[in-house]
Amino acid sequence: MTTKNAFYAQSGGVTAVINASACGVIETARKHAGQIGTVLAGRNGIVGALHEELIDTSQESDSDIAALRYTPSGAFGSCRHKLTGMTAGGGEFERLIEVFKAHDIGYFFYNGGGDSADTCYKVSQLSAASGYPIQAIHVPKTIDNDLPITDNCPGFGSVAKYIAISTMEASFDVKSMCKTSTQIFVIEVMGRHAGWIAAAGGLLADQNIPVVILFPEIEFNQKRFLAKVDDNVRKFGYCSVVVSEGVRYPNGKFMAEQGARDAFGHATLGGVAPVVAHTIRDALGYRFHWAVANYLQRAARHIASKTDATQAYELGRAAVELAIEGRNSVMPTIERVSDDPYRYRIGVADLKDVANVEKFMPKDFISEDGFGITDQCKRYLMPLIQGEDYPPYADGLPRYVTLKNAEVPKKLSPFTG
Amino acid sequence: MTTKNAFYAQSGGVTAVINASACGVIETARKHAGQIGTVLAGRNGIVGALHEELIDTSQESDSDIAALRYTPSGAFGSCRHKLTGMTAGGGEFERLIEVFKAHDIGYFFYNGGGDSADTCYKVSQLSAASGYPIQAIHVPKTIDNDLPITDNCPGFGSVAKYIAISTMEASFDVKSMCKTSTQIFVIEVMGRHAGWIAAAGGLLADQNIPVVILFPEIEFNQKRFLAKVDDNVRKFGYCSVVVSEGVRYPNGKFMAEQGARDAFGHATLGGVAPVVAHTIRDALGYRFHWAVANYLQRAARHIASKTDATQAYELGRAAVELAIEGRNSVMPTIERVSDDPYRYRIGVADLKDVANVEKFMPKDFISEDGFGITDQCKRYLMPLIQGEDYPPYADGLPRYVTLKNAEVPKKLSPFTG
Repeated sequence: MTTKNAFYAQSGGVTAVINASACGVIETARKHAGQIGTVLAGRNGIVGALHEELIDTSQESDSDIAALRYTPSGAFGSCRHKLTGMTAGGGEFERLIEVFKAHDIGYFFYNGGGDSADTCYKVSQLSAASGYPIQAIHVPKTIDNDLPITDNCPGFGSVAKYIAISTMEASFDVKSMCKTSTQIFVIEVMGRHAGWIAAAGGLLADQNIPVVILFPEIEFNQKRFLAKVDDNVRKFGYCSVVVSEGVRYPNGKFMAEQGARDAFGHATLGGVAPVVAHTIRDALGYRFHWAVANYLQRAARHIASKTDATQAYELGRAAVELAIEGRNSVMPTIERVSDDPYRYRIGVADLKDVANVEKFMPKDFISEDGFGITDQCKRYLMPLIQGEDYPPYADGLPRYVTLKNAEVPKKLSPFTG
Repeated sequence: MTTKNAFYAQSGGVTAVINASACGVIETARKHAGQIGTVLAGRNGIVGALHEELIDTSQESDSDIAALRYTPSGAFGSCRHKLTGMTAGGGEFERLIEVFKAHDIGYFFYNGGGDSADTCYKVSQLSAASGYPIQAIHVPKTIDNDLPITDNCPGFGSVAKYIAISTMEASFDVKSMCKTSTQIFVIEVMGRHAGWIAAAGGLLADQNIPVVILFPEIEFNQKRFLAKVDDNVRKFGYCSVVVSEGVRYPNGKFMAEQGARDAFGHATLGGVAPVVAHTIRDALGYRFHWAVANYLQRAARHIASKTDATQAYELGRAAVELAIEGRNSVMPTIERVSDDPYRYRIGVADLKDVANVEKFMPKDFISEDGFGITDQCKRYLMPLIQGEDYPPYADGLPRYVTLKNAEVPKKLSPFTG
């Protein structure tokens, strides 16, 4: 087997554990120096490959690479960019192959969600068509948890844990104050199309905490929602609401869009929480507080799920091992063996079965009234938030690593495509 | 020395560590059973005393009381209520003494901020005037960090740590994405009058993270602010903004008030983050995300500062020890001995010197340009966020305690004051 370099890139929204996958890829590649030369990472994702901005990870110390395991965000930079040109020729896909050729890259590890699985699949196809061999392996990552075949996606479990804990803590707070102050706490969470993240709020039912969830899958029914909230306040003295940013009115409009406007009249995106809070106040008169977690939820490595961080690493490692085995156009997956005790193994999916397939939350995961989760959903979610995996601290702050990120010299003329 | 019961109540906004003070009070009282009988806690704070809703903490197990040390929120309930009637007679203060008499209460431990220090002081005065002896001891608590004499207030250090870590993590996230996506991250933090909490964002300067702080102490200067943000984006590729909810325009209006309005035209309170984000977008064209931490910041026991949690406990313990020593109308304090290594001792302040005195952030804690903190401020803040003090977990969630909170039988007729 000849030695080929590897290319690794992070794609789309970053997470608390995508660097753990990077760590798994690089550490495992270093163990197979006979087959894999240097792991070159795309600066700011695939865009870095197009512009031949290739980070030489061999210049990073073992300890800095190990520190990726507990460092949130994308250490090499990520991007939202869908490659073009596959059919037209002379486009971005063709440039990619050109760059891979120039830097003797035989392995393409792409770490992302649905779009990047599609890109990865196309690279493997193009490689076959162009006669330059590339093994393209996708490393799953998305807090949206919407990739098919794999039981879950790295990044999601940590967000779920963060939302469950944050909602729990804020609920304790509101409970303390509800007699004379706030009765309603609303937290807005990510998930424009699917309620996976919002569902994490449902894990608090067992803690005797009243939580009403607004899923993007369920059309907002104001009357029933208000009745549910009112019922909780009468029973518990307070109520917490976990609302997905993707919740819509029956007319199809996002609640966030119909809501708050800034001084210039622009709709404020990501602002569904205040809309929900005011809807409750106006109808029921309860006092409220609201929070928008936004990036905090996907960056919160300080309270990442150990299950999630471990799986992210394992999938990075598995991707390299699959490459070593000669596999192409595949994605390592999590195969759940049992819920309790939780057992899983690493499986493999063909990229043709992953690309362009979106996994939605099963209908039977949402409770009949539409405001909570079922036992099935709970059994699914519980293992994913298990375990804490604290980063090391120095001077009161996590000791996250920032890499050198030095590039290898360019060999091609600038990309103008 | 005869045995007298003690009354303990939590006042005002709760924190991640106010229960640690409760734990210090109750555990220490249990060790002095000869002098202190039962610790009776006010249900929902002082309001519970008025209505004779007195929680019998002797019914709680030692392990449940110990669990208060790592449980956020107010375990007995808190309230925002300023007692009336001190001068008129027959009012709430008089009722308080009546309830204390009826339940043989000789110690009054009041756990709160500036208002409750004043209440505590008045109780001690009234006790002297009415001839019924009460030793009134205030236990400091406020995330606003604005009590005088004590070097810092329990609750603040944990919020500061939470804001520093959250801003750090979100900044790592934005840095990863800034090439093709978000350049600006805005986080709104508590602090209507003082910038203590916002100042925590300044601790990230040493991490090479560009953070611009908007303090309530500094009139918002849009031109200079935008220049500072733009400068950071040009230099770092991105910029984080930590904005206090209390920031005002030069005309004195809260930025939050001039900003977002809901579908009904109401100003959305607590919404200064989107106003700041849109101001940047409209002037500079940068893409943004924003978060409002709200209650999450003061409830986040999962990442509390160990220094803070320890001091909260110690001040609760010290309050009881002061009572045992016969002291009255006092508040235990933190006296800083040195910054680095950080050393402190527990001191004592007379309540007459605490009541109605607000401590502001020193002017020389804010950097000359008004957007950051000075080295002096950093030396002050650093010790307060030191150490992690993780709660125990079960099934992926913190194992916070919920007490029985059973009341002792009432002895008086209902309060109608």
